[in-house]
Amino acid sequence: MLKSKHLLGIKDLSADEINLILDTASGFKDVISRDIKKVPTLRGRTVVNLFYEPSTRTRTSFELASKRLSTDVVNFSVPTSSVVKGETLIDTALTVQALGADFIVIRHSSSGVPHLLASKVDASVINAGDGTNEHPTQALLDAFTMREKKGSIEGLNVAIVGDIAHSRVAKSNIYCLKKLGAKVRLIGPPTLVPDVIKQLGVDTYYDMNAGLKGVDVVMMLRIQLERQGVGLFPSKDEYFKHWGLTTERLALANDDAIVMHPGPMNRGVEITSSVADGERSVILEQVTNGIAVRMAVIYLLEGARQEAKQ
Amino acid sequence: MLKSKHLLGIKDLSADEINLILDTASGFKDVISRDIKKVPTLRGRTVVNLFYEPSTRTRTSFELASKRLSTDVVNFSVPTSSVVKGETLIDTALTVQALGADFIVIRHSSSGVPHLLASKVDASVINAGDGTNEHPTQALLDAFTMREKKGSIEGLNVAIVGDIAHSRVAKSNIYCLKKLGAKVRLIGPPTLVPDVIKQLGVDTYYDMNAGLKGVDVVMMLRIQLERQGVGLFPSKDEYFKHWGLTTERLALANDDAIVMHPGPMNRGVEITSSVADGERSVILEQVTNGIAVRMAVIYLLEGARQEAKQ
Amino acid sequence: MLKSKHLLGIKDLSADEINLILDTASGFKDVISRDIKKVPTLRGRTVVNLFYEPSTRTRTSFELASKRLSTDVVNFSVPTSSVVKGETLIDTALTVQALGADFIVIRHSSSGVPHLLASKVDASVINAGDGTNEHPTQALLDAFTMREKKGSIEGLNVAIVGDIAHSRVAKSNIYCLKKLGAKVRLIGPPTLVPDVIKQLGVDTYYDMNAGLKGVDVVMMLRIQLERQGVGLFPSKDEYFKHWGLTTERLALANDDAIVMHPGPMNRGVEITSSVADGERSVILEQVTNGIAVRMAVIYLLEGARQEAKQ
Repeated sequence: MLKSKHLLGIKDLSADEINLILDTASGFKDVISRDIKKVPTLRGRTVVNLFYEPSTRTRTSFELASKRLSTDVVNFSVPTSSVVKGETLIDTALTVQALGADFIVIRHSSSGVPHLLASKVDASVINAGDGTNEHPTQALLDAFTMREKKGSIEGLNVAIVGDIAHSRVAKSNIYCLKKLGAKVRLIGPPTLVPDVIKQLGVDTYYDMNAGLKGVDVVMMLRIQLERQGVGLFPSKDEYFKHWGLTTERLALANDDAIVMHPGPMNRGVEITSSVADGERSVILEQVTNGIAVRMAVIYLLEGARQEAKQ
Repeated sequence: MLKSKHLLGIKDLSADEINLILDTASGFKDVISRDIKKVPTLRGRTVVNLFYEPSTRTRTSFELASKRLSTDVVNFSVPTSSVVKGETLIDTALTVQALGADFIVIRHSSSGVPHLLASKVDASVINAGDGTNEHPTQALLDAFTMREKKGSIEGLNVAIVGDIAHSRVAKSNIYCLKKLGAKVRLIGPPTLVPDVIKQLGVDTYYDMNAGLKGVDVVMMLRIQLERQGVGLFPSKDEYFKHWGLTTERLALANDDAIVMHPGPMNRGVEITSSVADGERSVILEQVTNGIAVRMAVIYLLEGARQEAKQ
Repeated sequence: MLKSKHLLGIKDLSADEINLILDTASGFKDVISRDIKKVPTLRGRTVVNLFYEPSTRTRTSFELASKRLSTDVVNFSVPTSSVVKGETLIDTALTVQALGADFIVIRHSSSGVPHLLASKVDASVINAGDGTNEHPTQALLDAFTMREKKGSIEGLNVAIVGDIAHSRVAKSNIYCLKKLGAKVRLIGPPTLVPDVIKQLGVDTYYDMNAGLKGVDVVMMLRIQLERQGVGLFPSKDEYFKHWGLTTERLALANDDAIVMHPGPMNRGVEITSSVADGERSVILEQVTNGIAVRMAVIYLLEGARQEAKQ
């Protein structure tokens, strides 16, 4: 049983809770591997996707996870152009709840918005990415994938490569992997790997070749090309030269190291096609596992919410 | 049984028909209060949302009401940028019907469009707001909320405050409340409360403090901020000063007066947060009741449509 | 049984396969004529609409066809503004498949994109229109409609009128009608009816009055008004004068000739309202038949896909 009816971040979860989610997701992975990829478990519940940042992949993944649990799901479209004030955001969330939402899946460009909503609504709030803070279901699907491929996460050497400073994916993964006993190292230019992050118990490398030695998992981050030219990295070519994952570089990692990427990839920038499409890549499996993990999260939060009602 | 298979406006309904809708909605409110918030009643029927004005709340409310009746529902997205000629509008509606729509929920910036469609299609047409004419399901959910809170609508003193002239919500509410025996008064600046509206059997007040005395229900309208600067009202601050609902002003109404608003609210313009979030506010209950009322409307129109076929 | 699990074009189908689809669609037309317009046949399968060109009608038709087979269907919205590189397109398709898509319905402005996808994914790919190449389900619904109205397609005289050069609808219809034994003639200005197309075994007419004589079916194409002024046709008025279908012109065809149009129509440009809304018009029936035909395609491809797995 999860302690909270909300999933706001990995930071708040215990290792036992994370493992419960991963174990539950295993069962759902069986379900979604069948021709009839759904169960009637949550019929009549309502999931509302409330995305303040454009996202097709994550939104669709939550939409399909919801449908496979037989919930009703609606996308509450938020005009991205309109400036959203704090007050209005709460009004929107309260309206969504009054419409009967049992689950509100929220993505927002400001860190902390899911936590604010969770304090205002009775529905279960699921953080689908908030600012530079957390993206917990991404870390859970990454952990699920590593566990599936490597048997256990304890003791694994995981390298996360790229723009750590601005990445909620990196942040959630660091929390998750540390709780499950992995050793985490961050690789990237000093402008994108802030020194303060060492406080989270990770190693940092400013040289990719050195950083890749002995790792079991190479997790590439998507480079935000719009940061180019504002001084964080000089050009796509320069970035690729120093931080792009090539077949040659991958050879520095352990022989059975797997390659991950949260997508969508910038091929030829942070990763070459030979690696992305190579046999070590588990990038598409991450997408599939995302459905199973999100089903598990919704299912377990329903249990916690029912418990909280009593 | 409703006489027409369409819901075009409150103007066309008898008091008995309105009460039938409200009674039916009571049953559906029980349904949507459960964990399994749906019934199989209208499985295999198709509802098409055809919105020519952007609307997230009303569209989502109809979408959820439809899903809770187990219909299939699709949003037929209309490019809002394209100029829609009358001819094309009819072609679109005929196409939607040929796709198998049993219900067409239409919102349009021109008054009378739902009536035009109803004369062309066999599907049941539901007016979700047409120009400055009517917004019948809003008035029905408002009546449902008043009845739930006050026991009966007959004899209630209801004040509608704001831009009456351009408000289809006000128009539908006036028709509905008069038919059900309430006394209605309109409060607002002379530019927004046209004299001709007195013909509908209502009182008008150009002074808010005077208007609020002795009322059981204060219904605030959303001010359209884009009308500011075209001479209808001078500024947000001026509007708030004269027509904003504050705790002090609300004290002029009856002790047990309730506060309503169709949403979304402009906090600090037509209403203060202390009132909007106060214990007299039923604003979020209006949202919830909207689902129940729209389920009742769809359900009852299905009966009328089946009857009309025979 | 269809030979391929994909529907990429009519060009690849045999006459037997086309007839199988039309026969299967007849059964589904019965289903969608009932009050409960759906069957549980494909419950738990997932259809993803991947539209790189805006399309409300075709997308909604596929969406409803999918729902009536009880599949789960999601619209994977593609930002139309973003330039889509070949690589990224494949990544998107692979992601959609990894999300669990059994069927990918694709529309794209470049000819050949569905074929490219089909070579990369295990899901069934359905071409919903690719560049100026094919739009196979449109041709199938047109054939279904002709067969329903005329008993048989063999020996029918069918005229296709308008911008043949840029029309995937025309191309798919030519393939389909020739395979089923119809005689096809193309009518339009020389700029829009290229000489090379005669290789497909059709007659060409640059005079509409001559072309309409003795035809059983008049299929009008939508004129792309944006081509006006780039030298392909001089003006709407000029186009109408020479190629618009009027009651007078229609009288030149056989007495029981039917009029078809894939929609949406430009009334007063390629067709007059008197013809579009006249008793010979089967334009709205085409829309209805589109649902039945698309249900048949999805249903039959599921069979072929299951077969291919074994």
